[in-house]
Amino acid sequence: MEGSLNKIFNPQSIAIIGASEVPGKAAERRIRSLIEGGYDGKIFLVNPKRERLFNRKVYPSILDIADQVDLVMIIIPSRFIPQVVADSVKMGAKGIVIITAGLGETGEEGKKMEEEILSIAEQGGARVIGPNCSGMFSASARMNILGVPPIDEGPFSIIAQSGNIIDSLTHYGQLRKVGFSKIISAGNAIGVKFHEYIDYLNQDENTKVILIYMEGIKEGGKLVQVARAVSKNKPIVALKVGRSQAGARAAASHTGSLAGDDTIVDATFRQAGIIRVSNVDEMFDVAMCFANLPLPKGKKVAIISEGGGDNSVAADNAEKYGLEVPIIPEPTQEKIRPYLLKGMPASNPVDYGGTAEENPDMINQVVSVLMEEELVDSIYITGFFGGFKEIIAPRVGELEEKTSQELVRLVKEYQKPIVVHTSFANEPIRSLEILEENGIFVTPSSDRGTRCLNYLSDFSIKRDKLKRASLVKTDGIDSNRVKELINKVKQAKRCNLLETEARELLELYGITLPKAFLAKTRDETTKVAKEIGLPVALKIVSPDIIHKSDVGGVMLNLKEDKEVRDAFDNIIKNAEKVASPSKILGALVSPMAPKGQECIIGMVRNPQFGPVVMFGLGGIFVEVLKDVSFRVTPLTDLDIDEMIQEIKGYPLLTGMRGEEPKDINTLKDIIIRISKMVIDNPEIKEVDLNPIIVHEKGASIVDARILIE
Amino acid sequence: MEGSLNKIFNPQSIAIIGASEVPGKAAERRIRSLIEGGYDGKIFLVNPKRERLFNRKVYPSILDIADQVDLVMIIIPSRFIPQVVADSVKMGAKGIVIITAGLGETGEEGKKMEEEILSIAEQGGARVIGPNCSGMFSASARMNILGVPPIDEGPFSIIAQSGNIIDSLTHYGQLRKVGFSKIISAGNAIGVKFHEYIDYLNQDENTKVILIYMEGIKEGGKLVQVARAVSKNKPIVALKVGRSQAGARAAASHTGSLAGDDTIVDATFRQAGIIRVSNVDEMFDVAMCFANLPLPKGKKVAIISEGGGDNSVAADNAEKYGLEVPIIPEPTQEKIRPYLLKGMPASNPVDYGGTAEENPDMINQVVSVLMEEELVDSIYITGFFGGFKEIIAPRVGELEEKTSQELVRLVKEYQKPIVVHTSFANEPIRSLEILEENGIFVTPSSDRGTRCLNYLSDFSIKRDKLKRASLVKTDGIDSNRVKELINKVKQAKRCNLLETEARELLELYGITLPKAFLAKTRDETTKVAKEIGLPVALKIVSPDIIHKSDVGGVMLNLKEDKEVRDAFDNIIKNAEKVASPSKILGALVSPMAPKGQECIIGMVRNPQFGPVVMFGLGGIFVEVLKDVSFRVTPLTDLDIDEMIQEIKGYPLLTGMRGEEPKDINTLKDIIIRISKMVIDNPEIKEVDLNPIIVHEKGASIVDARILIE
Repeated sequence: MEGSLNKIFNPQSIAIIGASEVPGKAAERRIRSLIEGGYDGKIFLVNPKRERLFNRKVYPSILDIADQVDLVMIIIPSRFIPQVVADSVKMGAKGIVIITAGLGETGEEGKKMEEEILSIAEQGGARVIGPNCSGMFSASARMNILGVPPIDEGPFSIIAQSGNIIDSLTHYGQLRKVGFSKIISAGNAIGVKFHEYIDYLNQDENTKVILIYMEGIKEGGKLVQVARAVSKNKPIVALKVGRSQAGARAAASHTGSLAGDDTIVDATFRQAGIIRVSNVDEMFDVAMCFANLPLPKGKKVAIISEGGGDNSVAADNAEKYGLEVPIIPEPTQEKIRPYLLKGMPASNPVDYGGTAEENPDMINQVVSVLMEEELVDSIYITGFFGGFKEIIAPRVGELEEKTSQELVRLVKEYQKPIVVHTSFANEPIRSLEILEENGIFVTPSSDRGTRCLNYLSDFSIKRDKLKRASLVKTDGIDSNRVKELINKVKQAKRCNLLETEARELLELYGITLPKAFLAKTRDETTKVAKEIGLPVALKIVSPDIIHKSDVGGVMLNLKEDKEVRDAFDNIIKNAEKVASPSKILGALVSPMAPKGQECIIGMVRNPQFGPVVMFGLGGIFVEVLKDVSFRVTPLTDLDIDEMIQEIKGYPLLTGMRGEEPKDINTLKDIIIRISKMVIDNPEIKEVDLNPIIVHEKGASIVDARILIE
Repeated sequence: MEGSLNKIFNPQSIAIIGASEVPGKAAERRIRSLIEGGYDGKIFLVNPKRERLFNRKVYPSILDIADQVDLVMIIIPSRFIPQVVADSVKMGAKGIVIITAGLGETGEEGKKMEEEILSIAEQGGARVIGPNCSGMFSASARMNILGVPPIDEGPFSIIAQSGNIIDSLTHYGQLRKVGFSKIISAGNAIGVKFHEYIDYLNQDENTKVILIYMEGIKEGGKLVQVARAVSKNKPIVALKVGRSQAGARAAASHTGSLAGDDTIVDATFRQAGIIRVSNVDEMFDVAMCFANLPLPKGKKVAIISEGGGDNSVAADNAEKYGLEVPIIPEPTQEKIRPYLLKGMPASNPVDYGGTAEENPDMINQVVSVLMEEELVDSIYITGFFGGFKEIIAPRVGELEEKTSQELVRLVKEYQKPIVVHTSFANEPIRSLEILEENGIFVTPSSDRGTRCLNYLSDFSIKRDKLKRASLVKTDGIDSNRVKELINKVKQAKRCNLLETEARELLELYGITLPKAFLAKTRDETTKVAKEIGLPVALKIVSPDIIHKSDVGGVMLNLKEDKEVRDAFDNIIKNAEKVASPSKILGALVSPMAPKGQECIIGMVRNPQFGPVVMFGLGGIFVEVLKDVSFRVTPLTDLDIDEMIQEIKGYPLLTGMRGEEPKDINTLKDIIIRISKMVIDNPEIKEVDLNPIIVHEKGASIVDARILIE
């Protein structure tokens, strides 16, 4: 599969269908950028109404080309596209880039045409890029069919669903003198999907950072799997819009993608190690850092400045974004003090108190001590660096330049990143240029600087965790019995499993539930209750009743025989109001769960991501605070650890207010088995174990609801 | 009081104690900036070791000056300062600016000297600025004693506790061609406090925006009161550091201020309408917007662009920061559509689909329709404006400039703000300069643009609310009985009120509590219990026991006579283990509160802010989620509304999960009375009504703890 993309990014020949030489037209701009970009493969222009364009021969049809055609770019009205695609595959095209807009994003008719096009192309062995896209750039092929000014070669690759985001990024690239390896305008992405591009870019040696702009997500489950693997190797920075309703509205009108539930997008990106940003400029900042700086080992940053104000702001921002600003051990402080004005703090933040303004070499002296310190993972310089020559005297400029060179050397030697925040960042100052040319990130904003450094640390830590993580497994499932059970429900044309069936299914997957028995009569109920031990709960069992509590089908905490018998009569009577008597199977008698912490484990099948497992604490935590976590299956041990730990109520599980810690391992085991169950059985649409009461040892699943489709 | 500050900012003469002409010295830089800045009052240089400096006469002592001295700036070693201050007041100085560092911020000895200096100055009728400050700037007096390059006159005023933050802001001012009215380096702020400066700047007609950089807060209660009044008139933008431990550490080492609890700082700033930012560059952005743009009426923004990608990003960011991106009513959409490429959405975000790139006048057409629309409070233009001439053709440049002029006109006519985000913001482009010169905010970051627009909206809304808000009042308190009660506790040398006393005090303030009686014997207990009605709770009453539950001094839900009697014996027995029998006064018998929502109302006396009232829901909301709100007293009706509504658990009070809404008015009334009580009685150190069970009607204060000092 990657092979096929490789041909698309490195074609030996390109045919442009709908060639034009009218200035400013989509085709004209792209042919021009292709020629001016220095593409050295063969270019075939196709247009039945022209004989020569760009001083080249023009073919009436792609079928008239007497040569191999690797890549076809189509810019013609949509109704002609299916025929052209059919012709293209006849010519052996491996890739078809459709610039034309107005297909799937406009409605049902367009979607049908997309399906037709895709089917013709795939049967012919060609991959489709777009439609509704703005083209591609491949540095390795010197191929620019984006219709934009020449793009330099460099470490960034982009996959984007918006032309103007690509334009912004390439524009920033020009300003900051950074280039690109591959750029893909994915458009409606009906053929090649994001995860395939990502997989390809992972193997592209020239790509150091993968930048993604997404509006909608397709095959999100695969995206997570691929990204999770890629994140062990190189960073993926994503700008996914549609967090807000208005954002989703703007995106929907744009590429016709379904915007996914943003909470799940957030969770899955975190799961896959994708760095999610919220702006193009933030994306560019982070990309610059990833491309040029060594990764810090952890979150501990040393902050240094000639001013206490900047130090305070930097420290606050650093901790706001998740970095740590540890107190530096005394022996290292002692080594730093000689370089500071007498009495200034060396504890971190380190405050020169002005010595560096006249003699910037002090900065190097302090930085080299900090580089040696094991407790320091990264260094943040804040204040006026680069501007000392303006503040103090022009002669200091030269010293600042020397300092920059030394800082560059120290980063290389110690492999710890340095970020420099300075009020002079936006000015053309040589000492700052030296830093930037050598990959040290320079920013006018302490906010942006600390945020970037935190992204580097987060990625570094996550990468190591992902390397150690492994998929969870469960064996010994009797899949025949599972199939039988589900088929039985299907044959009854039901979409909800009875609680008895749900319990059976869970047990087949090795999940232990409290003992419970179906009682069909009053007398049976008390007999069973005695066996289980009082107090008990009764719940109606009927295929007609899904929401049992709402119809008076649940009675709790029944302590005496008489109470149990009356309860049975009661819930049967209530059930008869909403269900036909033949569909009332009886009452499930179960013990009252001992005390513990209420939890929920659930699963929904998300249209973008497939089976998504949810975890949370029960009651107000879910209903008021939405304090739940999500992960896309299949799960790793890391996923399960993280999804349990990231809820705000987590301290309630580890033991607080003098309570014993709860049995988190049992919760993990249930999550593992639920994920196995929903992967094995695509018919299962929803699972809701709510509540589960987790105890100091074990957990009681009090209610289980499973829906199929 | 303002009069005295006015003299300080507009002195007719200045004496500099410790004058020097050595280049780069603190005194030299300040004398130079004073002379070069064009100050036209009299300048007296004082230094016993020099006869002439700066080609001027030098006085051996301030006492040798045969003229009025309004302002004295001191830059000499600290041990000489008290004498110089004494001499200065003799000369009739109204203000004394102490640049010298190394006083209060270095320890106890320095603090003592500060006290001495302050006392001499104040007795002599002079106000002290600093010490450990970098000086002042006053445009009205053409006075620059900051020792920095000339500063232009303009709409910003700064009060800051860090010299390098002032340097950053004035540097940004230079780059963005904006000036200042007053700049105050407050240093350790032993004399004039922040709230006094703010009050003065409020009356300074040339100040449009007040910018504050704070490390520590002194007299926070007054700060809130003053700022709350000023925010009805002009915006205060504050960068308060010390959010993080490291930030507080850096600040503490810097100006020796106590960093306040940041949660309370956040709450009080919100209460006072202060806009809290976290960076110098963010502060500058916001200040530019406040100085130049009309305030939006509300939060509803219309977003327009030539690209769907930028629109999506802007919409997401807008909602992230709290703006609303409403769907525009159909009649207005209809008016917009003619200007868009066919089929592009006009609903909001509005997408030109490229028409504007060649013909930017389309932007004006759409903007003028949006300005007319009542639903739109502000307009956000995103994309590539200013760069169309580069993307399309140079001829478009002129059209863009015309568009800019028209946008400026539209802002003036309709008094709705426009913010422009463009990838070309950092480049020297005429059309963007036209916007900036006329006050439209131009930014390269959608993040910064939407954040600023939200600050404008927040301030606008808050300003209107503050104008309508009024202080809450309670009458009819029998203050003699209150004093008696508190004196009784003081005379007994106790710092904790017995629960019976706490109940009495609350009742004196008109707070209704559930009936409860002190029972001294077993028999009395059952008698009282019968009167109250079973079930009841018993709580030990003893001056030796504060944490009653911890020692087995509380028994709940006692349903029968025998239970009540046994409970009495039990808690007395338990009490005897920790208290002497003579100090055990009996058991408080109270009814079990009916069901409802658990809440807390409390008060702590904060060292910076004085009495701070707290509200929250009980249990895990406080213990796990820290979901509580704070306000500094005295409270307004607005404060109380906001502090109840801003907790995350608020929906639990308005009725959810099918429950009836709770009696919020009773909670408000308790808060009003508690705030009155703690203002009246400075001895009260802590109040903790926890839990209060709030019902559909009324509330039961189940436990009340009051500490005095």
